[in-house]
Amino acid sequence: MRWVNHGETVRYDSAWVRLLTADIELPDGRRFDHHLIRMPMPAAGVVVLDPDRGVLMLWRHRFISDTWGWEIPAGRIEAGETAEEGARREVLEETGWEPGALTALTSYHPSAGISDQTFHLFVAAGAVEVGPPADWFESERVEWIPVARVREVIRAGQIGDGLSLTALLWCLAFDEI
Amino acid sequence: MRWVNHGETVRYDSAWVRLLTADIELPDGRRFDHHLIRMPMPAAGVVVLDPDRGVLMLWRHRFISDTWGWEIPAGRIEAGETAEEGARREVLEETGWEPGALTALTSYHPSAGISDQTFHLFVAAGAVEVGPPADWFESERVEWIPVARVREVIRAGQIGDGLSLTALLWCLAFDEI
Repeated sequence: MRWVNHGETVRYDSAWVRLLTADIELPDGRRFDHHLIRMPMPAAGVVVLDPDRGVLMLWRHRFISDTWGWEIPAGRIEAGETAEEGARREVLEETGWEPGALTALTSYHPSAGISDQTFHLFVAAGAVEVGPPADWFESERVEWIPVARVREVIRAGQIGDGLSLTALLWCLAFDEI
Repeated sequence: MRWVNHGETVRYDSAWVRLLTADIELPDGRRFDHHLIRMPMPAAGVVVLDPDRGVLMLWRHRFISDTWGWEIPAGRIEAGETAEEGARREVLEETGWEPGALTALTSYHPSAGISDQTFHLFVAAGAVEVGPPADWFESERVEWIPVARVREVIRAGQIGDGLSLTALLWCLAFDEI
C-alpha cells in the first residue's frame, strides 16, 4: 500500500545531492517527517571481462568509510551522456583501458529506503590498453583479477563497495563470468 | 592512494542522516568540497528460504522513487540490537513469519562514493507463521516466491531495491538458493 506524502521540504540543496523531509502519513494514521535524499546524477559501472585475464578492477581507498577494496570502474553519468556513454568514459578514465562492446545488465536503487540514487550496471567484452589512466588518483593500482579470485574475494567479504559487489554477483549468478 | 581530508563541515544533522562536506585534496593537488552522507544506523535484510515454498518476499511501494517491487524483509537495526537481532525482528514485523536459524552472508556499503551507510545480509533456514505482520503497512502483500521465479524477476530488472537485489544475487551466485 502507498504511504501518503503530504509534501516535501528541502533541508539542504546542491547540484550533487538534495536532502529533504517528507510529511508522511502511514495507512495506520501515524504521521511523521521521513528523511529522503535525491541525487539527480545516476552512476554507471562496468564489469570488464577478458576470457584470459579475468575482470578489470581498481584497488582504491574510500575516504568516507576509510576502507580499501577492489572495485570495478564506475562513476557519475555526466549531463548529455547516456548511461552507456558514461560507463565507457569511466572505464577509460579510471583504468586506461578502452572497453569492448557493452551490454546492459540492470539498473537499481542502491538505498531505496532513503534515496532515489540510481545505478546502471554493464558488462564489457574485453578491453584494449590505451595508456595510463587519466584519473590515476582514483586508485592505487589497476589489475585484471582472475574470476576464481573474484569469487574468493567477494565470498571473504572483501568487496564492500555496493555497486561493484552487485554487478559482480549478477555476473556470477547469471554465468556472465 | 588516499585523498587528503582537510576537515568536514556538517550541513544538515538528524538522528537518521547527517549531510556534510569534506575539504578534499586530490593527489594531483586539486582541492574541492566533496559531499558525504553519514547514516549512524545500519540496516539488515534476510533471504528467508524454504525448500518447498521459495523465498519470503514483500510486494511494496517506495514513495521516494515512486516504484513498486518485490523486496526481502529488511530494516534499520535499533540501538542495542546486534545485526542478527535486528534482522530477525524485521522479518517478523514485516511478514508475520518467525525465521529459522540465520546465517550471515556479508556486509557492504551500498553507495560507497557518497555515504557510509552499511547493510548486513543474512539467509534464514525457513520460517514459521506467527500471525499477521505487525508492520502490515510496509507492504501490499507478503508471498513465498519460487526460486525459479525469483531468478526471472531479477533478470527482468523488476527488483529495483538494492539491498534485496544484492542479497538474492549473493544467494544465486553462491548456490544458497
